Amino acid sequence: MSMEAIRPKAPPPPIALAEFEQRCEHARALMAQAQLDAMLICTELNVRYFTGFSTQFWTSPTRPWFFVLPRWGRPFAVIPEIGQENFLQTSWVEDLLTWPSPRPDDEGVSLVVDALKAIPRTFGRVGMEFGTETHLRIPVNDFRRIASALPQVTFADAVPLIRRLRNLKSPAEVARIRYVGQLVCDVFDGMPAWAKAGMTEREVVRRFQAEAILRGADRAPYMIARSGNPGPENIIMGPTDKVIAPGDVFILDTGCQYDGYFCDFDRNVAFGKPTDSAKRAYVTIWQATEEAIKAVRPGSKVSDVWRAMNKVVEAAGATNAGVGRMGHGLGLALTEWPSLMAGDDQVIEPNMVLTIEPGMEFAPNALMVHEENLLVTPDGPELLTRRAPPELPVIK
Amino acid sequence: MSMEAIRPKAPPPPIALAEFEQRCEHARALMAQAQLDAMLICTELNVRYFTGFSTQFWTSPTRPWFFVLPRWGRPFAVIPEIGQENFLQTSWVEDLLTWPSPRPDDEGVSLVVDALKAIPRTFGRVGMEFGTETHLRIPVNDFRRIASALPQVTFADAVPLIRRLRNLKSPAEVARIRYVGQLVCDVFDGMPAWAKAGMTEREVVRRFQAEAILRGADRAPYMIARSGNPGPENIIMGPTDKVIAPGDVFILDTGCQYDGYFCDFDRNVAFGKPTDSAKRAYVTIWQATEEAIKAVRPGSKVSDVWRAMNKVVEAAGATNAGVGRMGHGLGLALTEWPSLMAGDDQVIEPNMVLTIEPGMEFAPNALMVHEENLLVTPDGPELLTRRAPPELPVIK
Repeated sequence: MSMEAIRPKAPPPPIALAEFEQRCEHARALMAQAQLDAMLICTELNVRYFTGFSTQFWTSPTRPWFFVLPRWGRPFAVIPEIGQENFLQTSWVEDLLTWPSPRPDDEGVSLVVDALKAIPRTFGRVGMEFGTETHLRIPVNDFRRIASALPQVTFADAVPLIRRLRNLKSPAEVARIRYVGQLVCDVFDGMPAWAKAGMTEREVVRRFQAEAILRGADRAPYMIARSGNPGPENIIMGPTDKVIAPGDVFILDTGCQYDGYFCDFDRNVAFGKPTDSAKRAYVTIWQATEEAIKAVRPGSKVSDVWRAMNKVVEAAGATNAGVGRMGHGLGLALTEWPSLMAGDDQVIEPNMVLTIEPGMEFAPNALMVHEENLLVTPDGPELLTRRAPPELPVIK
Repeated sequence: MSMEAIRPKAPPPPIALAEFEQRCEHARALMAQAQLDAMLICTELNVRYFTGFSTQFWTSPTRPWFFVLPRWGRPFAVIPEIGQENFLQTSWVEDLLTWPSPRPDDEGVSLVVDALKAIPRTFGRVGMEFGTETHLRIPVNDFRRIASALPQVTFADAVPLIRRLRNLKSPAEVARIRYVGQLVCDVFDGMPAWAKAGMTEREVVRRFQAEAILRGADRAPYMIARSGNPGPENIIMGPTDKVIAPGDVFILDTGCQYDGYFCDFDRNVAFGKPTDSAKRAYVTIWQATEEAIKAVRPGSKVSDVWRAMNKVVEAAGATNAGVGRMGHGLGLALTEWPSLMAGDDQVIEPNMVLTIEPGMEFAPNALMVHEENLLVTPDGPELLTRRAPPELPVIK
């Protein structure tokens, strides 16, 4: 197919600036209970979440970008001056402190310290991203400098608060996940026209990535792809130069991005005639997915959904795929809280977006994993991906 | 052009496992001087650098992956059990501790604590990635748990040591940067056949990304693209829906990856007839690049190279582009130490890979930036990208 012939469908409109402001208002409303005088945000996803600002400069580790949300007073950013103009063009936040970066001896540190000093202190606590599934984007040395210059401040974990907000997606966020999920479904639908046994796993993945981008994905960073007979032996590594042979089952588990938001789902296809064990495993896991979708409703726990899947897998006499969970939250990150597993009792609420991802080892070193993405609505789940067919698709 | 017609050239062979082991030996040889009993490595790039293990699971923030290099005794990894088999297949490191992840209450923490307790103590210091241009990949809460369980250990910055190693690239590393740089040059060379005024910036970028992937890039994550007349007004944001008009100068600054390694360079083209000011600015910046390439030799400082560029820019009466530096290191990260700027006096040595990136504002809100990638050899620089033409290329 010619590259010119593949064009994106119309993407969702930009997220309104007022939405980012509203997220900050929601955060602020939770800060008193969390006993935080301010939040100091340093990661790409949360700076974007609260301000609307995004830049590919995050790819470079040289420069930090900070956002400060005080409980009282106006929020402001502390960013390298190279980003000033674009920040003001794209964010609702109007107050900025900048410095000429790179400046390794003081990479925004003194500006952040002085700004935090000026914030009214009620609790003496500033929230940062310290908790589960987060990282410290600034160098530890810089964090230590900030903390030691502010002995009167306790830096505390703001992740429970942020998680509370990010768990519930807005219509604009859902529209992005749906958009990228649907366009990746389109790529999967087209695969039988070009994928065939004899190609390597890498060749299939390159073509897939290129098509996803031509159809509207901004990035196609997560591309787990393996083939094997009766099934792939793992689902954690990327594609290899292995030639796909007749009888192989091929899994492609992909996270593609549009405007910051991910889809994360997979499809399994057989090239040529699959084994009966693979066909049975596919039906089992498809059925486990079906049971999970039925189990997703407001008021249930995510562990209930896990149990619905695990019951089907166990009834088939299989061991699970060793992934440790069977789905997770989805949004700005490829995987977000919660985890669909026995120990996670988070209650399901409308506007959560989840992946449903049951898996099993159906023969020695042969795995079968399915994954779909859905939105929780007051009436139950709404699929954001198009449901995989109930029987193992075959590419002749 | 049909997608099938675009195929990768032969990539470099895999990096030998012995090379990863050698890196650890080099690190170990520097640890006594740095007074470190061990290093605790938690970031994707450095775990990969020392062990050879890579997994796309780093895209998910759920699971941490640790590598411990003791000064005495065998190195080992502490990783989620989902990664065990693949770790053993792909890394030279044979010792592993694993846990079933996700397990948010103890995500590898107690294993790391117990393992560090067992390491012979000479200095009472364990090195971590704390310094400039790094981040803490594990949650701060988990780092605090580790540190408070080991009051007898001082966690110290190992970045100077790591920087020393990573600054000097092996032939296998250089081969990767060259491979991806050359294939991206091929994409640029093909642009006149398909890019034209009337396309949006996004359309050009999508096609470019798709071609880069079909030609062999694993990812095309960094795609700064802007157009404007007489020149683009910034070089920090991604492409927009702006239609490229006749007379526009279009810049594409791209970081693509192969097997973990980046290229990072740009090209400027005019669509239709550019202004004289743009043509002059192009020649000025091309000349600044030329002077910088001449100035790159072992024994010089990176600030000398910056001065060679700045002199040309200032002689043209221009202000610089506000980037704060005119190039940087390149490798596993899109940007690495050092920075080519007035204040960075790192001495240039053979086997460093640098980007040369002069820029200027040549008219109000109109920028011109060039970028090339080169390897330092004992005899001077060797370009890893194909040199841009000396006059502004025009696409009719």
